[in-house]
Amino acid sequence: MKVQYTRSILAMAFFCALAATTTVAQSADPLPSWNDGKSKQSILSFVSKVTKEGSSEFVPPAERIATFDNDGTLWAEQPLYFQLLFGIDRIKELAPQHPEWKDKEPFKSVLAGDLKAAFAGGINSLVEIVGAGNTNITPDEFDQIVKKWAATATHPKTGRLYTEMVYQPMIEVLAYLRANGFKTYITSGGGADFMRAFAERVYGIPPEQVIGSVGEVKFEIRDGTPMLIRQPILGFFDDNVFKPVAIQRNIGRRPIAAFGNSDGDLQMLQWTCAGSGTRFCLYVRHTDGEREWSYDVTPLGRLEKGLEEAKAHGWTVVDMKNEWKVIYPFEKK
Amino acid sequence: MKVQYTRSILAMAFFCALAATTTVAQSADPLPSWNDGKSKQSILSFVSKVTKEGSSEFVPPAERIATFDNDGTLWAEQPLYFQLLFGIDRIKELAPQHPEWKDKEPFKSVLAGDLKAAFAGGINSLVEIVGAGNTNITPDEFDQIVKKWAATATHPKTGRLYTEMVYQPMIEVLAYLRANGFKTYITSGGGADFMRAFAERVYGIPPEQVIGSVGEVKFEIRDGTPMLIRQPILGFFDDNVFKPVAIQRNIGRRPIAAFGNSDGDLQMLQWTCAGSGTRFCLYVRHTDGEREWSYDVTPLGRLEKGLEEAKAHGWTVVDMKNEWKVIYPFEKK
Repeated sequence: MKVQYTRSILAMAFFCALAATTTVAQSADPLPSWNDGKSKQSILSFVSKVTKEGSSEFVPPAERIATFDNDGTLWAEQPLYFQLLFGIDRIKELAPQHPEWKDKEPFKSVLAGDLKAAFAGGINSLVEIVGAGNTNITPDEFDQIVKKWAATATHPKTGRLYTEMVYQPMIEVLAYLRANGFKTYITSGGGADFMRAFAERVYGIPPEQVIGSVGEVKFEIRDGTPMLIRQPILGFFDDNVFKPVAIQRNIGRRPIAAFGNSDGDLQMLQWTCAGSGTRFCLYVRHTDGEREWSYDVTPLGRLEKGLEEAKAHGWTVVDMKNEWKVIYPFEKK
Repeated sequence: MKVQYTRSILAMAFFCALAATTTVAQSADPLPSWNDGKSKQSILSFVSKVTKEGSSEFVPPAERIATFDNDGTLWAEQPLYFQLLFGIDRIKELAPQHPEWKDKEPFKSVLAGDLKAAFAGGINSLVEIVGAGNTNITPDEFDQIVKKWAATATHPKTGRLYTEMVYQPMIEVLAYLRANGFKTYITSGGGADFMRAFAERVYGIPPEQVIGSVGEVKFEIRDGTPMLIRQPILGFFDDNVFKPVAIQRNIGRRPIAAFGNSDGDLQMLQWTCAGSGTRFCLYVRHTDGEREWSYDVTPLGRLEKGLEEAKAHGWTVVDMKNEWKVIYPFEKK
């Protein structure tokens, strides 16, 4: 009986240890959609270093913060940021109830299909386009509007749902980091509440780990009910120098890894990699004109200074065409 | 052999289930510093309802968000908010390097010990007092300054470290909620980076779950090093109508439980308890003039409208004197 008992204890210990580690040891290769190469190796090497207990490069789990830009880093951003396409879809949908839009910019140009004219007003036009029909409502109502759009609207080139146009290799990086004790955050110029409507489902990132641009909201009591109401005012634009500012404000500590695809992410990467200890900065570079798009510079964003800095500091630059086996999850067979 | 095997499996299942629940079943009484009474019962009843699987009141763990005011709710706030006492300590410490303060308000009055005059300028004076010597430095440098102060400065009445003057019954509520799958947040008018310097150690709340007022920070590259620099400008004042706004901005979902002690917390409680499903709102009322302080109204804050609302909506109001066995952890024998 004694031997039997000991065997049971050992079996239990083994069984429980197995249960506890299954999330970590999901697969022999945690990044199966990445070709073996410099970028994949740099990610594996970084994670291996900071998670090795007893090593001088070890980072405690609580400090394993990784921040990701969204547009162009976690999902596609062509021919326009998807939130702008959402705004345009919504303007078309609501136009019958807004006859005044026919004579008012930027709506007039959006409805006429002249996007160049629609965007002529710069950031103010963009705010009006993404705000149209989405203000003077509660965050919950907005969440439902975005969820409905995400479930039905399709991309003009691929015909796919927008949330299908996320990058499979980056989804693997997110999961791999989390399996290694990282907390993964989005830090994007896109609207925080817009991204929150799908970030948990498609990226496994909960609302409280989504940092983005914010429209003002106002506390009001309407007919005796306390509520928040979305205002047509840009409260914070989470881009370039403001990305590290928003990270300090919301997270309160410096990430040890940061991922972006444009000069708008540069300051986030600079601040992240200027911290002490082992750090990781990565740029996704859009080099695949066939499966995705090939560009460094577009009217809305550019990757120029970032490439110089990446070279100077030895950051990872991903060549999508040559380093990614698949771009989107739907390519997987 | 077959029976033996089945027994082992059962033993394993039992053993693992036990291992998984030990954190929940820490103690027969999760709130030992609370006298049995209405408030304690209301907390236990709420948690029991929202964690009961299959019940119509069940709330999934991801939505179990609880927000806590800090000053007067998690730690004492008399004779002044502790961050103001920190600011005053710092002004006295740095005065020799700032001869100009002798002729400049609010520093002049602070150094003369005339706090009424020092605070005459309202919120602007407060910002100057808590900002003195704490701007034009990095968040990391500020963190070190606060940590040093918290480790050495003592309260004028009790002679205790400020971080010893936290409320033991509320520490138990925080731990009890977390053991039941809640994510606990601070949402305070105090400075976010000030509270982050000790919140994890004393409350078990990590920096990314601390929401508070923020001074502006600016991204700069100084001598080739990218860094954030604290500015002498109030960026956001996290009080009254702005508390729910900050919660939406940082967390992106409505809490299901909120805890405060003043009318400055009212809108947070109103918004929290106006949500659908089972909700919990609690006011800590300062009724113990002997062990703590007895007050509803002070020059800096008041609990008046909140009491009316609590009565109207059946929120919990804690009578510190009669419901708390101990106030501070150091009273425990």
